[in-house]
Amino acid sequence: MKALWLEHRQLRLRDDVPMPARRGEALIRVRLAGVCGTDLEMVKGYYPFTGVLGHEFVGEVVQIDDACSDWLGKRVVGEINAVCGQCEQCRNGRPTHCENRTVLGILNRDGVFAEYVSLPPDNLHRVPDSVPDEAAVFTEPLAAALEIQQQVQIRPTDRVLLVGAGRLGQLIAQTLALTGAGVQVVARHSHQQELLRARGISVLNEADVASRRYDVVVEATGSPEGFALARKAIRPRGTFVLKSTYKGEISLNLSPLVVDEITIVGSRCGPFAPALRLLEKREIDPTPLIAAEFGLNDGIRAFQEAEKRGVLKVLLRNA
Amino acid sequence: MKALWLEHRQLRLRDDVPMPARRGEALIRVRLAGVCGTDLEMVKGYYPFTGVLGHEFVGEVVQIDDACSDWLGKRVVGEINAVCGQCEQCRNGRPTHCENRTVLGILNRDGVFAEYVSLPPDNLHRVPDSVPDEAAVFTEPLAAALEIQQQVQIRPTDRVLLVGAGRLGQLIAQTLALTGAGVQVVARHSHQQELLRARGISVLNEADVASRRYDVVVEATGSPEGFALARKAIRPRGTFVLKSTYKGEISLNLSPLVVDEITIVGSRCGPFAPALRLLEKREIDPTPLIAAEFGLNDGIRAFQEAEKRGVLKVLLRNA
Repeated sequence: MKALWLEHRQLRLRDDVPMPARRGEALIRVRLAGVCGTDLEMVKGYYPFTGVLGHEFVGEVVQIDDACSDWLGKRVVGEINAVCGQCEQCRNGRPTHCENRTVLGILNRDGVFAEYVSLPPDNLHRVPDSVPDEAAVFTEPLAAALEIQQQVQIRPTDRVLLVGAGRLGQLIAQTLALTGAGVQVVARHSHQQELLRARGISVLNEADVASRRYDVVVEATGSPEGFALARKAIRPRGTFVLKSTYKGEISLNLSPLVVDEITIVGSRCGPFAPALRLLEKREIDPTPLIAAEFGLNDGIRAFQEAEKRGVLKVLLRNA
Repeated sequence: MKALWLEHRQLRLRDDVPMPARRGEALIRVRLAGVCGTDLEMVKGYYPFTGVLGHEFVGEVVQIDDACSDWLGKRVVGEINAVCGQCEQCRNGRPTHCENRTVLGILNRDGVFAEYVSLPPDNLHRVPDSVPDEAAVFTEPLAAALEIQQQVQIRPTDRVLLVGAGRLGQLIAQTLALTGAGVQVVARHSHQQELLRARGISVLNEADVASRRYDVVVEATGSPEGFALARKAIRPRGTFVLKSTYKGEISLNLSPLVVDEITIVGSRCGPFAPALRLLEKREIDPTPLIAAEFGLNDGIRAFQEAEKRGVLKVLLRNA
């Protein structure tokens, strides 16, 4: 089948990738897939992965074991961590931290920039009919945005600062705004700012960020500058959510974190079911984030587009 | 009066320090004071402080406004942050983070290595008669140990690792053990280990610390090595409590914190009332930590003793 294959930091379109064939799993025809910041980082060598890239998708189940035949023909999205169910993390309700996990297009499992993909039936979520593919393809990053509220209580009276309004930041801004909290967003690019303002979300210039005043600060840039700005903004006993991976080490003076009793929370994959509920109820609208759409055949060009500064979501459609 | 005076990283015994005279405050005769790690760090220049050092004490109120005359002659301990009551932190229940605070022997307020000290009446706590000076003098560090449980829920089924069993670490070990959780402590010095074992607390060698297995890890060494060991031990979605200040910067790879969704919590001053309750009920016994006692006249020698590696609590007694 056709697929975008990553090997030695080189992404190329292949048409000879074997069809996925994992025993007991569902075979899914990919309808639409999204390029994520992690995909771009992986091409730069962030993880030593060889195989089909991509983990954001919506597709259709085309083959599955008889016991799960209800899924056949259904439109689905899929959780990206395929887990063992046996290890200490799985047994303690932390399956996304499974010690034996494979991760779609990231770790020991071919991803979704392909005609077909395979996932365990337990990973699948039915997409409500009213949610179009162009919204459903955002389920995974929207779930990641919701992970913040899975970990941290956002009070309606909280002052919340979000630093970064890229692909993930836009979704975080929308989910945070639903809490009723006073949310302000530092967005660098003018079209990022416009998207936020169009939803009535307050945009702030870096220079106007107050020091030591925010109850919760979310860092979604992954840059040392974003980290420093976010750190400065947190009030004593406030919460600092890290919603990005960072390249390399960041040098940090820990003593002020102790003196100010700051809480830092790392945040990764989130829950799909609430993401789908919010999409179905149209409380979140990710579609304005779509910057461009390419066919899988033009996958390399799609990546070139996605790599441009300030470009939001680039989609890959299967013909 | 006599006092241990810090100036330009030089500690000296003076006998010409003016008596404290702060309007509206209580004048307290210091009976017994304790040398803390922070005091030692301050002599090394950790904070640019000039004045009387020391913040752990038990004393007796000898002068106070008429409106508070009930305090006269009472044996007291005192919270170290003197606060404004008006700023945003004070008004939001975070007085230890008061933006205008002075801190006993640390920030803009003379400390307790002196014959007398001054504190606002609101800072005072009566010492129960059954608690001897030698235990009451530990109220402040014991409160700091309890701050961990003020911030982080320790579940009775949790696996808890404490790295560091010095002055503060010993008290943390005792308070953590009261939760019923499985507590293990990495202690470097044999007499630290013996004190823990004498209380039935499990001692662990560094080499035996399991990776990624502890629900809660408390770092109480303030060293980069202790930090690294503690970091290694936390399970995914676990909590990492920083209970020490650190000299200089620590270089940190933040991405694994995000991938493992670790929570880091900085922890500083804690609540006095529960500390006094635990001392009164003898649930905590700090007195075996006492390594030596000196008169205020021998204060410089006391500091020399406290600086020796592995030495626990050195006390200063007023004649």
